[in-house]
Amino acid sequence: MAAPSDKALVPFVSVAHMMALVHRIGPETALQEIAAVIEADFRRWDSFDRTPRLPAHSPQGVIELMPTTDGAHYSFKYVNGHPGNTRTGLQTVAAFGLLAEVATGYPVLLTEMTLLTALRTAAMSAVAAKHLARPGARTHALIGNGAQSEFQALAIRALTGADRLRLFDTDPAATAKLMRNLAPLGFHLTTCPSAEDAAAGADIVTTVTADKRNARVLAANAVAPGQHLNAVGGDCPGKTELPPELLPRCAIFVEHPPQTRVEGEIQQLPSDHPVTELHRVIAGTAPGRRGPDDITLFDSVGFAIEDFSALVWLKARVTPDLCQPLDLIADPDDPRDLWGMLMRAGPDASV
Amino acid sequence: MAAPSDKALVPFVSVAHMMALVHRIGPETALQEIAAVIEADFRRWDSFDRTPRLPAHSPQGVIELMPTTDGAHYSFKYVNGHPGNTRTGLQTVAAFGLLAEVATGYPVLLTEMTLLTALRTAAMSAVAAKHLARPGARTHALIGNGAQSEFQALAIRALTGADRLRLFDTDPAATAKLMRNLAPLGFHLTTCPSAEDAAAGADIVTTVTADKRNARVLAANAVAPGQHLNAVGGDCPGKTELPPELLPRCAIFVEHPPQTRVEGEIQQLPSDHPVTELHRVIAGTAPGRRGPDDITLFDSVGFAIEDFSALVWLKARVTPDLCQPLDLIADPDDPRDLWGMLMRAGPDASV
Repeated sequence: MAAPSDKALVPFVSVAHMMALVHRIGPETALQEIAAVIEADFRRWDSFDRTPRLPAHSPQGVIELMPTTDGAHYSFKYVNGHPGNTRTGLQTVAAFGLLAEVATGYPVLLTEMTLLTALRTAAMSAVAAKHLARPGARTHALIGNGAQSEFQALAIRALTGADRLRLFDTDPAATAKLMRNLAPLGFHLTTCPSAEDAAAGADIVTTVTADKRNARVLAANAVAPGQHLNAVGGDCPGKTELPPELLPRCAIFVEHPPQTRVEGEIQQLPSDHPVTELHRVIAGTAPGRRGPDDITLFDSVGFAIEDFSALVWLKARVTPDLCQPLDLIADPDDPRDLWGMLMRAGPDASV
Repeated sequence: MAAPSDKALVPFVSVAHMMALVHRIGPETALQEIAAVIEADFRRWDSFDRTPRLPAHSPQGVIELMPTTDGAHYSFKYVNGHPGNTRTGLQTVAAFGLLAEVATGYPVLLTEMTLLTALRTAAMSAVAAKHLARPGARTHALIGNGAQSEFQALAIRALTGADRLRLFDTDPAATAKLMRNLAPLGFHLTTCPSAEDAAAGADIVTTVTADKRNARVLAANAVAPGQHLNAVGGDCPGKTELPPELLPRCAIFVEHPPQTRVEGEIQQLPSDHPVTELHRVIAGTAPGRRGPDDITLFDSVGFAIEDFSALVWLKARVTPDLCQPLDLIADPDDPRDLWGMLMRAGPDASV
């Protein structure tokens, strides 16, 4: 049987390929580049379809599809969130995604997105911190030292300069792992005995924990005027990280309100509580921080446009040696003759 | 770098693998088996999440995500519909899909679904015809002789015995192609000069055309009492095949009413026009055909549960030599140490 034509072959970026690509580009450069694409896409927010993601909830976790399109490209991500997975050696969050051409509906890139999601989530946090934290931020408290924490540390340093880290996790082994991983990277590192201690004096406080419940990973009175909060971990219904009494003290910034009202920290607030869409701050059509004593909160849940940005970045940056062609799309010589293609094949697969 | 562990590797069924599998099983057996799984899943309809599919419309076509779950497995299909694609040698419909485990959110199968969709769509039509056509049906009119037509012919014969085909397409080349493909398969074949001529005397009339507009592929007065109509091609808003004045004469059966009201032939009717859910006929809780003079209409648009059935069938039937392992899911030794996995990799991808 003849090999499938180019139209049938979709470039696939495996986990190994993605790791090699990040090594070649350098993780900080990759984070900066993805942040730049996210910023550019947020400036043209109205170009995008903004469907809230489609979740399938189960007692163990959630599986979500996150599609969007700008009219030229279409993307979606498949992503799960299963906090109990680590008990059996699996990732809490695993993901893959696809970029397609709107004009034909044909996929142009399929890729692992566990690593790419870690990169884009951190890049998104850093974009928000760049626009919302007080100028000259140096100290970053990281509450939750799991799989996402190194990426947050690096991205926020890359975009704001914050190179002093104060670390806390309920599991000291997680903090030890983070210390080990960050040691060679030029940070000033301090481990802290509590979340409140970590937050003390920080310019930026990132919460990135994984429990699927209404948690209080930080006492409300531990947050001081002038701080920027980056709430990453609370990202589905019934899963929050911050105490509700803290929220009214904050100027709250979100990705897409219809999604964040259901999934973010603000699910704990009345549905008409005022929030600002972050893309408007980036575009200069809404104010961000109003003064040095504001507490700004980026109530991050992750939005499909960020994945779109990451996929477009990847498509531009990936090289042919870091893809494998996948025989994903049937490609009969005559498109109306799918049966004929099937019949001309035999019982032995040549691809 | 070490090879990824089994948890990271998702079996992938390529187009070539799918063709080989269908050859080994035999197309008619495959259609019968898929029909049996669809019937079994329709009998347990309430076990499934029934979210209408998520479409992204563009001037050229539509890209859709079709997820569902029965609480144990989760599936989705990516599928496009671009009628103009054939002008540039591409398929009107190309698709791929995924089966995952709900308990962990991890994918267990990724597959081409262009061929699998052709099989499941035909199997679905055949299940409906088996339950709705008059007993002893022998003659099947096929209006629209494109990529789906051979599959419809075979599946409907396999489940109802209808082996006399009356063929029509606005493009005689499509009919010639269908004649060529069906010639070795033991049908009685008649080409007809018009859709109305094809429908005359048929027990089952299948319309499976691809225009994205409100078409009238068959005059209302060409449909006679006792016929079963299988309307396959009209499957998105603004795309219908049958004249609206025909519809009130029919007993109408649908997959999932909230989706069919928007996408099916019945988008031309008031939104409260009575329809029967086909799964209830299959389960015996609603009547199907009430007598020999009923005109029954299966207003088929394609529903996610049918893809779920097809994916579960494939997972059970595919053999290890017909999959390739895809390095799709990041699998760090310590699930909280994604960064460490990245750092231990190098700039050369070994997978």
